[in-house]
Parts: sequence; structure tokens; C-alpha cells
Amino acid sequence: MLAETLAAIRPADPRALAEARAHQDRLTKPRGSLGVLEDVAVRLAGAAGVSPPPMPEPAALAIFAADHGVHARGVTPWPQEVTVQMVGNFLAGGAVANAFAAQAGATVTVVDVGVAADLPDAPQLIRHKIAYGTADLSQGPAMTVDQAVRALEAGILVGKELIAAGARCLITGDMGIANTTASAALISAFTGMDPAEVTGRGTGIDDETYERKVGLVRSALRANAVSDVSSSPSEALRALAAVGGFEHAAIAGLILCGAAERVPVILDGVIAGAAALVAAALDPAAIDHCVAGHRSAEPGHTAALAHLGLRPLVELELRLGEGTGGLLAHPMVCAAVRVMHDVATFDSAGVTEKPV
Amino acid sequence: MLAETLAAIRPADPRALAEARAHQDRLTKPRGSLGVLEDVAVRLAGAAGVSPPPMPEPAALAIFAADHGVHARGVTPWPQEVTVQMVGNFLAGGAVANAFAAQAGATVTVVDVGVAADLPDAPQLIRHKIAYGTADLSQGPAMTVDQAVRALEAGILVGKELIAAGARCLITGDMGIANTTASAALISAFTGMDPAEVTGRGTGIDDETYERKVGLVRSALRANAVSDVSSSPSEALRALAAVGGFEHAAIAGLILCGAAERVPVILDGVIAGAAALVAAALDPAAIDHCVAGHRSAEPGHTAALAHLGLRPLVELELRLGEGTGGLLAHPMVCAAVRVMHDVATFDSAGVTEKPV
Repeated sequence: MLAETLAAIRPADPRALAEARAHQDRLTKPRGSLGVLEDVAVRLAGAAGVSPPPMPEPAALAIFAADHGVHARGVTPWPQEVTVQMVGNFLAGGAVANAFAAQAGATVTVVDVGVAADLPDAPQLIRHKIAYGTADLSQGPAMTVDQAVRALEAGILVGKELIAAGARCLITGDMGIANTTASAALISAFTGMDPAEVTGRGTGIDDETYERKVGLVRSALRANAVSDVSSSPSEALRALAAVGGFEHAAIAGLILCGAAERVPVILDGVIAGAAALVAAALDPAAIDHCVAGHRSAEPGHTAALAHLGLRPLVELELRLGEGTGGLLAHPMVCAAVRVMHDVATFDSAGVTEKPV
Repeated sequence: MLAETLAAIRPADPRALAEARAHQDRLTKPRGSLGVLEDVAVRLAGAAGVSPPPMPEPAALAIFAADHGVHARGVTPWPQEVTVQMVGNFLAGGAVANAFAAQAGATVTVVDVGVAADLPDAPQLIRHKIAYGTADLSQGPAMTVDQAVRALEAGILVGKELIAAGARCLITGDMGIANTTASAALISAFTGMDPAEVTGRGTGIDDETYERKVGLVRSALRANAVSDVSSSPSEALRALAAVGGFEHAAIAGLILCGAAERVPVILDGVIAGAAALVAAALDPAAIDHCVAGHRSAEPGHTAALAHLGLRPLVELELRLGEGTGGLLAHPMVCAAVRVMHDVATFDSAGVTEKPV
């Protein structure tokens, strides 16, 4: 399924891009006056292959949940069971992601790709558990390449199901205590930047824990011999398996699915940024179908966005994850596209255009 | 009516602020992890005097339209009749503000406070025309103090009507070819900054026009003897009349109305920023009821926001006006408040809190 999905991905359509840019310039507003949102609308036209692009709503948030072997090394004060507890909170509708999704009119689906406990049934829970958490990435591979591919394919499958159910925009979400450690390792591996530059304080750690976290990211890269991974797909898969998490793999799969199906994907924060680096290494054209929802407070996220060439829409120092930054960006992405559908041209509205 | 409105304004309620901050810290998210949005929710609790604050929806956008005598001096390539044409476009639903309002579920009301032409009737048009445009501010007062007060009161009246019709959030909008010139003059007067520092290129001008625009702002301040206006209300009114526009006065009135009625006001760009400086000089507590929607590309807007102590939510290089930046921010303001209503606490959700 991975090969088939990759084969279906097309880069942005140059004709749709040009048509969208020209259409923007005919609308009753000074040229360029919508700033970054004009680029978003043009980007989505290129991704869809048609201008104007379809409205990216309704949106579906997929929260991929998993645990991490490196948690045992003390990279965060939060106990591992918080992953399970927060899954319960999502399913009960009590988390910030639920509130933001309600505001954006988005559905919330939780996917267990590797939580270290058995979860009770729930209507919004999809089971694709690959294992009860990853192995400790600082000592060797976090997962096998086969597991990484299965997690990627879980993300693809979830994307297909959400699109079949009517989603016209996919939003990435994550839950996994310690997953900023794996994110930092992936970002260091794919950008070639030093662990100290791309490791952050996650949801809040002290100096001692931070130093330990940077050291573990460094150990992970050394133990797995992954530093400055080339962009060959097989090396990318090996790096993902070595230092990633199941949720990173699944989010990369969701991105590839959106790209293959020409349904835009709004990336959340640093976990999505790390996953997008994996997707880009598998096929750079996948990123043409992505919009960066927000810039997380994590330094590795800025590094990942720069590497991907993406400018985020929301910059409000969020550091929560769950898909919250992507959900906040969704109404702005819709507004950008709605302009292409609804706004009059200078000709049609009888408005005098600025003399050139 | 102005005096009565000013008398009704209360600053942020310290008890509601404290309760809101404490409530934020009990919610199932790492403390502070919603960044700036936590501050927005707390701010709105202080403004409303209750925690959690009421949901700020539905929103109503009021676009105040007016013309400017300084237009004749050549501060913009856009002909003055574009003001009337764009009013027609708003009323026909064809402008970007209409598209963004549709996305945000906001109503759109256009208020003629000083358009230099007679306008045909339309259901969404309110008439409060003070004059057919202001006088040329570079030669003397743009309007009389009496006219300034009448424009302020028009803004207050419109705010009252919108709130009576059900609005629970007011969004400022403007339309007036050449109104960034008056904005720069107001911002220079109220912040004490040099005209060259706060004058921008509006919706797009060349170097020669830009130099002329800065010179006219400088002439306006000199001709009217308004530089570094003190914050006495009478001086503020005199400065507003000297170098402002009717839409600036009306927006200042809308802000005062929202503050008096404890309905939050989302400020749009540089025109709203200039108007908010006027409102703040009339009563600093009015700003406790405002949220800065976005940061415009105009340098004067950054100066105004800094003076007001406001951090904008959207920073996407918009330079359109109309209320577009305020409309984009509205779903985020709602999301921030919704968190206070919907999100579970650590206790109620059975989620383990991070050890301190």
C-alpha cells in the first residue's frame, strides 16, 4: 500500500498555480494585500490541480497515540500513563483538541498505533497498535523497518477512511509522552543539525532533564548510525525506524495519503514537522499538499519548517500538540480559499483598479 | 452620549482575572502550553468581569467608511471614488471582508460616516454621514471637534445597535481611500514618534508618493500644532479632529461602546490601532476590552500596538483593511474562550498532573 500511495502522488500542478495567481490579481483588493493567505490559496490550487481549489472543509483531525521506550531514561516529568489518560480524555471530549475541533467544525479520531496499554473500545478510537510502545532509541532501533512501514500504512489507511467519510482536509494530531525526544532525533537526522540545536523543553522540563534529553538524542543518532540521512527512501525508512515513534510514522503516512488523494493536510507542530521530513524524503512532492498550521515553541520545529520550506500560519507560542495548532489554522486556510470562490473581480464589481 | 459611555467603562476585574488564570492551570494541558491564547482567555474574563467569560460569538463586523481631503494631495494612486465603489462591493457581498465574515459566521454592517458621495439605500447600510469627506489635514483641522464627537457617537450608537441585535463580539472595519495617511498622523501625534517612522506604503505606493506622504503627515502635525499629544481627553479630541478621519473617530466610539457594555472588541489593522490610541487617551481602561486581531504591514501599526501594550494574534502581512485581520482572529479568540468552558480539569478527567 505504501508503494501504491507513493506512485499516486503528483507535485503541484503548474497550470493551476498560474491560474490561481492570476485570479488573485483580478480580485477587488490591492495586489498582494492578503499576504501569506494568497500564497496558501495558490498552494492549495496547485495541490488540487484546479483553480479555485475546493473548500478544505469539513476537516478531520487524526490524533495518533503511541508510547516511547526512551521515556524510561527520564526525558520528561510526565508519567507514561498520561498517554493513555489523555486518549481517554480525547475520547470523552475533554481535551483542548476537542474544544478547538468543535470551534473549527472538525471531527476527532484517535488512533492507537502504539500505546503501552490495552485501551477500552470507543466509537472514535481506531486500533492499529504496532507494539506496546517503541524500544529505547538511545540504545538501538526504536522499531524494525517492517514496523515502521506498518505504522506508515496505518496512517494511510486512516487518511483513506476519513476522506471516504467526507473529510476535505486532514489535520495531523499526536499524543505520546516523550515524543519530542524522538522528534528531535528525527529532525537532527533529516536536517543534519546538531541535537543541541533542535532539542527543546517539550511540555516543560528543567535544565538537568534538558541536558539529559540532548545527550540521549545524541546517543540515539550514534547508536543507530543515523546522522545527516540522505534523501533516499530506504535510508529514510531506516532512520524513521531507528529514532522515530509510531505516531511519527503514522503521521507521515497520513501526509502521503492526503498528497495521493489531493486532499490538503494541515500540519500541527514539531511532531508533524518531524513526520513531514520523513514524508518529504519518501517523496518531496508530498509537501506540495501540506500547509504548516503553526510554529511550535520547540526549536526543532523551526528547523524542520525551514528544511521543508514552509511558513506557518499561527505563531502564538503553543506547545501542546494534539493537533491544536493545525486546528487553529484551519479557519484561516478556509478563509484563504473562500476568497477565491466568493470575492468579486474589479470588472464584475465595477471597482476602479489602481493605475499601474 | 460620549460622557455617559465613558462613565460606564470599567477596567479589567482583578478577581475574574485571577480566577481565570487559576482555572487555566487546572485544565488538562501543561501549564502555559496554549501560549498567547491563555492570555486572551484571561483577558476576556477580566473584561467580562466573570470567569469563564461568555463565548464571544456571534461577532458583528462594522465597516466605517469615509473620505479624506488629503487625498487631493496625491498620497495614493487609488482614485477617491474607490471608497464608494467598495462600499457597493461590501453591500453586494463581493469583498474579502464578506468572504472572511461568512467563514467566521459574522454579520457585516457598513456605516457611512463621511463618504464624499450620496449612497443608495441598502439593508446593511447605516447612515451617519458627518460630512462629504474631511478637510485636508495638511493645511489645518480635518474636522471640527464637534464633528469628531458626532463621529465618535455614531460609532457608539452602531455598537449599541449591534449588541442589541445579538452581537457578543465587535470587530472593527474601515474603508476610506487615503486613510493610512490620517492613521500615520494620529499615531505620530499619540506616540510622539516621527512621521517617517510610522508612515507606510498603505495599499501600495512608489518612493516619490511615499516621500510626499511623509511630508504631508509632518505638515499636518505642524499646521495643527499636535505633536506628542498628552493623554488629557480634551487634547485627545482636539488631535483626533485635527488629523483624524471620520472612520477613526467612529471606530474609537465603537471601542468605547464595547468597553462600556463589556462586549469584547477585536481590533483590525493600522486604522483601528490609530483609533484605539484615541480611545485609550479618552479612557485607558477601554483597552482592557480589546484584543488585537492582527499586525498590519504598516509600520505605524506596530508602533500603535506597542504603545497600547497589545500583542496581535495574526501576523500574515495583510495590508487590506476592511476588518479582514480582525475577522481572521475571531475563530482563535473563540477557541481560546471555548477552552475555558469545555476542557476537563486534571481532577475531573483523572489525568495525572506533572509533578512540580
